[in-house]
Amino acid sequence: MYSMPDWLFEFHGHKCPFVVMGYRLGKQALEKLNAGRTLNHEMFVFSEMGVGHPQGCLQDGIQASTSATFGKGQMHKLFYGKIAAIFYYPGKTPVRIALRNEFSDQLAPHEFFRLRKQGIEPSEIPPDVADDIVNVVLSASDEALFDYQALPDFSFKPVKGSFNKAQCAVCGEYVFERYLRRRDNKLVCIPCSGQEPAEHTIYLPVEERK
Amino acid sequence: MYSMPDWLFEFHGHKCPFVVMGYRLGKQALEKLNAGRTLNHEMFVFSEMGVGHPQGCLQDGIQASTSATFGKGQMHKLFYGKIAAIFYYPGKTPVRIALRNEFSDQLAPHEFFRLRKQGIEPSEIPPDVADDIVNVVLSASDEALFDYQALPDFSFKPVKGSFNKAQCAVCGEYVFERYLRRRDNKLVCIPCSGQEPAEHTIYLPVEERK
Repeated sequence: MYSMPDWLFEFHGHKCPFVVMGYRLGKQALEKLNAGRTLNHEMFVFSEMGVGHPQGCLQDGIQASTSATFGKGQMHKLFYGKIAAIFYYPGKTPVRIALRNEFSDQLAPHEFFRLRKQGIEPSEIPPDVADDIVNVVLSASDEALFDYQALPDFSFKPVKGSFNKAQCAVCGEYVFERYLRRRDNKLVCIPCSGQEPAEHTIYLPVEERK
Repeated sequence: MYSMPDWLFEFHGHKCPFVVMGYRLGKQALEKLNAGRTLNHEMFVFSEMGVGHPQGCLQDGIQASTSATFGKGQMHKLFYGKIAAIFYYPGKTPVRIALRNEFSDQLAPHEFFRLRKQGIEPSEIPPDVADDIVNVVLSASDEALFDYQALPDFSFKPVKGSFNKAQCAVCGEYVFERYLRRRDNKLVCIPCSGQEPAEHTIYLPVEERK
């Protein structure tokens, strides 16, 4: 049976099947890319998940198994509402891994989801129920869980990093140069400038996915 | 001296001062809010960081100490380029915690940054250099590290979750209902619809921060 580090559920906050699937999905991606855990900023993940569906927990599993973290700017959301992710590693063929519909269907009747749909929070699900559904995920084969797709045309250019910063002339806080704005001929931060932030999470041209 | 779980650097991928600051910042937020680790979806974090500055590692520390994770939809970016975060917990007064300029200045001349600015990746920094700067962060008092601000007017409404999904009529993959689109009178996913995703990461009205 597949195994995971003890800290996975501590990090995530609760025990659920999706964080475990995500852990396995991330491991599979590293295997397909013939890469190790991304210690710095080598790999980028484009999660196809959105908001408002509880399967997002998958993304924490991916962070945990690959270290392609949100904090390091390696995890982005595409907002497609799908249980899938694209893994981009410069110099390698990008791979998309999706959870198989059949596995979703197999899991759906489980007591865990019956309780969740009644509004019971994941941390309040009885431990034997959570353990059981986690074991279903751990026992499944990679082939039962995932579909794979090479995406040779998928490309992405990460933003180049900079250590340069300046103090906002209004609030006095440090601001990194990319986010400095000009107001009354002074450099200020975005909230003090009265402007909206120009950036969003999604840098990927959508047409590249078609 | 402050201590952290062993898995923090394994999760993050490398040892750096910012993931440690973030860990402490998250712990401080929980203390100010009189709350424990957020096991489900109780708390939301609005990081003021952006992209293209290496201090983003802070956000992984916050995820690790609070379990307000990206995967669970509890970590959002405001793209202000500041080393600060707002913590929103329904029923409590939101708190903003920022890294003090003085602490940034104290840390700046360290060998760790000299090497980083030469292009040496965090995982390649000599262990004694990384340990030393981490110890500077661990030895500092909360007061030396952080500024606090209550934000009683800050508000946020998380998206209500749903388990409902349908198969895309074109690619056959499952799509959560929020992301289903209509094309030729059939329900399809966003990539198969040819439409751009309508959503972004930022749900927060910016005017509430002024």
